Amino acid sequence: MFGNMLENVRTSHPLIHNITNYVTVNDCANIVLACGASPIMADDPEEAEEIAAICGGLNLNIGTLNGRTVASMLIAGKRANALGHPVVLDPVGVGASKLRTETALRLLEQVRFTVIRGNISEIRLLASGSGSARGVDADAADQVTEKNLDEVLRFEKEFAQQTGAVVAITGAIDLVTDGKTSYCLRTGHPMMSAVTGTGCQLSAMTAAFVTANPTHPLEAAAAAVSAMGLAGELAHDRLGALDGNATYRNYIIDAIYKMTPEILEKGASYEVR
Amino acid sequence: MFGNMLENVRTSHPLIHNITNYVTVNDCANIVLACGASPIMADDPEEAEEIAAICGGLNLNIGTLNGRTVASMLIAGKRANALGHPVVLDPVGVGASKLRTETALRLLEQVRFTVIRGNISEIRLLASGSGSARGVDADAADQVTEKNLDEVLRFEKEFAQQTGAVVAITGAIDLVTDGKTSYCLRTGHPMMSAVTGTGCQLSAMTAAFVTANPTHPLEAAAAAVSAMGLAGELAHDRLGALDGNATYRNYIIDAIYKMTPEILEKGASYEVR
Amino acid sequence: MFGNMLENVRTSHPLIHNITNYVTVNDCANIVLACGASPIMADDPEEAEEIAAICGGLNLNIGTLNGRTVASMLIAGKRANALGHPVVLDPVGVGASKLRTETALRLLEQVRFTVIRGNISEIRLLASGSGSARGVDADAADQVTEKNLDEVLRFEKEFAQQTGAVVAITGAIDLVTDGKTSYCLRTGHPMMSAVTGTGCQLSAMTAAFVTANPTHPLEAAAAAVSAMGLAGELAHDRLGALDGNATYRNYIIDAIYKMTPEILEKGASYEVR
Repeated sequence: MFGNMLENVRTSHPLIHNITNYVTVNDCANIVLACGASPIMADDPEEAEEIAAICGGLNLNIGTLNGRTVASMLIAGKRANALGHPVVLDPVGVGASKLRTETALRLLEQVRFTVIRGNISEIRLLASGSGSARGVDADAADQVTEKNLDEVLRFEKEFAQQTGAVVAITGAIDLVTDGKTSYCLRTGHPMMSAVTGTGCQLSAMTAAFVTANPTHPLEAAAAAVSAMGLAGELAHDRLGALDGNATYRNYIIDAIYKMTPEILEKGASYEVR
Repeated sequence: MFGNMLENVRTSHPLIHNITNYVTVNDCANIVLACGASPIMADDPEEAEEIAAICGGLNLNIGTLNGRTVASMLIAGKRANALGHPVVLDPVGVGASKLRTETALRLLEQVRFTVIRGNISEIRLLASGSGSARGVDADAADQVTEKNLDEVLRFEKEFAQQTGAVVAITGAIDLVTDGKTSYCLRTGHPMMSAVTGTGCQLSAMTAAFVTANPTHPLEAAAAAVSAMGLAGELAHDRLGALDGNATYRNYIIDAIYKMTPEILEKGASYEVR
Repeated sequence: MFGNMLENVRTSHPLIHNITNYVTVNDCANIVLACGASPIMADDPEEAEEIAAICGGLNLNIGTLNGRTVASMLIAGKRANALGHPVVLDPVGVGASKLRTETALRLLEQVRFTVIRGNISEIRLLASGSGSARGVDADAADQVTEKNLDEVLRFEKEFAQQTGAVVAITGAIDLVTDGKTSYCLRTGHPMMSAVTGTGCQLSAMTAAFVTANPTHPLEAAAAAVSAMGLAGELAHDRLGALDGNATYRNYIIDAIYKMTPEILEKGASYEVR
């Protein structure tokens, strides 16, 4: 199943419009290429609508927001909705500032999202509509564990039902749900958190997966999450004694480039709930 | 000949002002350093004129345009023209939006370019002054092949004559012309299109080459194109079984860093038409 | 001593707010992670104050300035000052334009810096309040050498006393002083200047070190400078025959990731003056 999702990205190579932060944008572009899709970045309100229209899918990421990009996100999001294109939201650091929280909530009000992907702290904050965050990482006190898994899944399903979006909470354990069916994925490596933007990369890649698999947003999002986690494992296996997070960053993208549907099928580790 | 062009970059290490997109800007800076020049990025209208003046050459790239950068490009371009500095245009994704098309045409009207470098779709669009594009990649239906090579070269020469610029169309086959003499280059590797910004990098490096070889813009541009293609080949030769587009990205820049005039001379594969 | 400074970053992993240029921002984020801290980038005036408040330290870098980022730097700097958080200034390319010079001087007037780190040309320019620069690299005629070391240290100490900041001049020889005690460090490798943003990375990492060692800003800054130089050496030792500046960039960050307090202690090479 996940293999087919990847296969469809490779054969249809959708064009993905990204309005994303300038910190991890290059890695986002390279991972979108690695999975078989094609990225275009454009964040000026003057071209946001046209670019959204020529693309197949849209990825909105609220890191390093500013007035220009907020306006573009709203324009592009509405246009993508009007055209029936999938839209992904990555609420990076929501809760860290009023600008981020208000922008994320405004986007949720005005744009219909296909997938919302974040860490547990970000998704909790979005779901509650308020709160505060320590930064761009999940709070240490706020991790998905075997203990709180059921509780997290309950609130996540509720949020998915409210928004009509597939919700993906990623971390040590990844939970992807459309409010009815849920995937609990156990791939990945803790060292991924030492690479800036693995979450941003996953969101960009998720946009590619859901665009290439328009009738299966849940499975497509879970496949993207699984591919990223597996890439984190395979990349870690390659690390030599002197390799650190910079080499790891490259190897993760490499692993997506080299991933075949067969590798993804075999390497996936999840249960459906 | 191409070897000399590279040698001149290495000995004069010109300072290159880049107003370029934020997606591939880091790779542009590193490849400019790799070839022996020095990059400076500055895109605010308040400093564009001064920065252009202290540099030897200018590289304008229209990816991720916004109001601030459009204004800066015009200011810097005019200043560089007034000082007799070479200016390179990379019309990334022209045709994908009115903003990109209008900006590119405005730049063509108000700034005299030494080199214009793009893929076949971008250059066709610039030459015709209108049309539409799929994104930042050349249309699949619009590639330079052995079959249409003569036709492409005819229109490219005409565009070069109209603009007074050396025009470089890069892709599977690269065509560089000043309207009279033309270089048809057959270096490079298809996997280069899986790395974001190899075109942007080439444009930045081209600015370094033409700045270091002010009396030979055609040969300098062809040498830069040849160096990039050769780097793509040499980098590909190094790839191991698990290496993908991220490692390839690094190896391409590495290959430019390690390229000697001798390597470039020997590895070049082209005919003059 | 330097080992303890690193140890404290690893155990307290401070959150560092960076308002920095878009050229090297990804490397800054990854090196902050590599040393054990956590980065957040945010440059809109609407969120600069809040982000500064949730972070432990602030890093201001004036490459690719624009109106938005200048305003944010002032807001964030004042807020960090009010909260007693350490603030680092990296005056990239000061002197290359009025915008950069005036912004740097305005920041010096309105914000109290814990550390000011730059190359010799940048620090001279800041100290004198005027002058011109060739770009973002130190003038060739303006290097710290064994010959002028005493003279440079004299002016640097004076500047440290004037500003109340620890001043770090980095280059072939690194000089770090609080106006009384000075560290003269002889680590690093000339090839580091072929990688864009090693200075930016060092400033971001310095912010992490001084934040994790609030009572020892001089030793913390010197430890960061020493760690970066040592990383440059260790990374260079790893380079193969085909590796150039792109691989070197990754290996430098890797070396910081892999650096233990013991490695740093043993590899440090400095004298106290």
